Amino acid sequence: MHIGDQTVAELGEDSLLARIVPTMPAGQTLVGNGDDAAVLPTISGSVIACADILVQDRHFRTEWSTGADVGWRATMANLSDISAMGGRATHVLVSLVLPTTTPVDWVDDLALGVAEACAAGREAWGHPVGVAGGDLSSGREIAVAVTALGTLDGGRPLTRSGAQIGDTLALGGTLGMSAAGLALGKDGTIPREEGPAADAWRVFRRPAPPLALGRAAAAAGATAAMDISDGLGRDALRLARASGVHVQIGMARPSAALVEVARLLDVPDAVAQAAQWWRSGGEDHALLATFPQGNELPAGFTPIGAVTDVADGGRVSFAEASDGSLGWDHFAGVEEG
Amino acid sequence: MHIGDQTVAELGEDSLLARIVPTMPAGQTLVGNGDDAAVLPTISGSVIACADILVQDRHFRTEWSTGADVGWRATMANLSDISAMGGRATHVLVSLVLPTTTPVDWVDDLALGVAEACAAGREAWGHPVGVAGGDLSSGREIAVAVTALGTLDGGRPLTRSGAQIGDTLALGGTLGMSAAGLALGKDGTIPREEGPAADAWRVFRRPAPPLALGRAAAAAGATAAMDISDGLGRDALRLARASGVHVQIGMARPSAALVEVARLLDVPDAVAQAAQWWRSGGEDHALLATFPQGNELPAGFTPIGAVTDVADGGRVSFAEASDGSLGWDHFAGVEEG
Repeated sequence: MHIGDQTVAELGEDSLLARIVPTMPAGQTLVGNGDDAAVLPTISGSVIACADILVQDRHFRTEWSTGADVGWRATMANLSDISAMGGRATHVLVSLVLPTTTPVDWVDDLALGVAEACAAGREAWGHPVGVAGGDLSSGREIAVAVTALGTLDGGRPLTRSGAQIGDTLALGGTLGMSAAGLALGKDGTIPREEGPAADAWRVFRRPAPPLALGRAAAAAGATAAMDISDGLGRDALRLARASGVHVQIGMARPSAALVEVARLLDVPDAVAQAAQWWRSGGEDHALLATFPQGNELPAGFTPIGAVTDVADGGRVSFAEASDGSLGWDHFAGVEEG
Repeated sequence: MHIGDQTVAELGEDSLLARIVPTMPAGQTLVGNGDDAAVLPTISGSVIACADILVQDRHFRTEWSTGADVGWRATMANLSDISAMGGRATHVLVSLVLPTTTPVDWVDDLALGVAEACAAGREAWGHPVGVAGGDLSSGREIAVAVTALGTLDGGRPLTRSGAQIGDTLALGGTLGMSAAGLALGKDGTIPREEGPAADAWRVFRRPAPPLALGRAAAAAGATAAMDISDGLGRDALRLARASGVHVQIGMARPSAALVEVARLLDVPDAVAQAAQWWRSGGEDHALLATFPQGNELPAGFTPIGAVTDVADGGRVSFAEASDGSLGWDHFAGVEEG
């Protein structure tokens, strides 16, 4: 029951858990929430596992993101990683650090966002995604640590290291929209009406990775795949390094929506700004994959480049010069021009 | 390489990872660290999963605990939960929140503690325990979020809900030593010489759960088991509730070491203080289990009580009155006398 602006300290840990746990999807379990650990059925001889942690004022601001946005984003970042292995998620575990003054409403809302992200996973994969456990602690700032578990259903994993010379580089999902949304927030231009700006603002708060595409890529013979969370340039370089290849990326393909957001922000060159968001914006959680030349790309993928040469240590080049900085450190090895 | 008092901000995230990841045990993996997610082999048709998060100044103080102590404790709390299900751990994932001013040395030391705890798991179970992934973020205070995965090797899980009327209640491991160590710390009485006080101080900083006993309990026909992390009284009540039974616990059995630590602290009644630590002290991560009457207890277990009646909602009673408060909220249902 909602009791005004009650804090988590006033409610207490046990009551908070008793309130939230029943609202979470359970997924398939042999032993569920409430014991020392959960016991989860495995479909085949392996389990996929990954972890991500979001911290207040580092990854989100409570002025911009609701609790549900934060719960969604922390969960979705992990579901996207599972998808990028060619798998589907089956369960998440969620550990929270909450200041004692956190409103219970905010935590309810965070739980709702976790459940909504699990429902989106179920929608994409046709199987339930459950919350199998977690932990609670007080602390000075909010932190949300999510671990996701998943399955390949007997399929092969899509790693970063399998790209071959001649492969087509393909993209699923959007690029740059989250960065554009962040730019709107920093500019104080929070959109009030539907349109490209509202779309960017939504992707920034609630990225919508193309969760079904990881398995589609594996089925279509993809040689490598990865989740783009730090920007196309930086993440393509990671794939290039892992595979020991030179990845050439064609002309930037910023969407009309990206260009329109750039225009709203009154930058000197809106198209160049949009292209930069496309090349280096992170957090959309698009899927990057390589396919043997001639393989038909699954619906949802667009070709954006090719694997052209062997390159020890990896190399990425873009087909045209960027007018702005790519904005990432540790970027040695990326060429433009 | 060690470079004086360099901070994590000076070193940078990628360099910090490049430094630490190779020092971690890998365990058995199909796809290891460095991809979007790890792919881990499963031995049988299930995986055990649990999570715990430790936060600076809530669970540890950097004045009292080294980085290695914190890494050990965060990992061990999870390994103990896996053991309490009757399983063994195979992998952990470790997500860290680190203030930018954290010395790199401290993080190196934390990684060492994680590796040492994994090695202790390997020692107890005869199989490797690996670090399969994790995440890093900056933040205002240190937080260590660990998820552990494990296997039952085809065995049955030991839940909290299986205790039966007539069962013997048995304890594996120590009780109260961590609470006694904490009391020493709060008193400013940090022991300098070996002895009971040093032992308590060690258990407080580095709890040593009886990791092999979970599987031993399962093999010996245990009906229920759980990790004691919040004190015997509180955790026995959880088991009693889950099983719907009345658990009667006999006379407190504080060790001579506990009594000696209480004497050092100059409390009015050292034996009563030791008994209270035994009844309500948390964080030793002892193992509580129930066995059918007449079953021989595995080596390492001591009988401390019995399951005597059905009790809706669960009930725990102690055979003698405590002279002090049990010190936990949400303790309704515990009786003394």
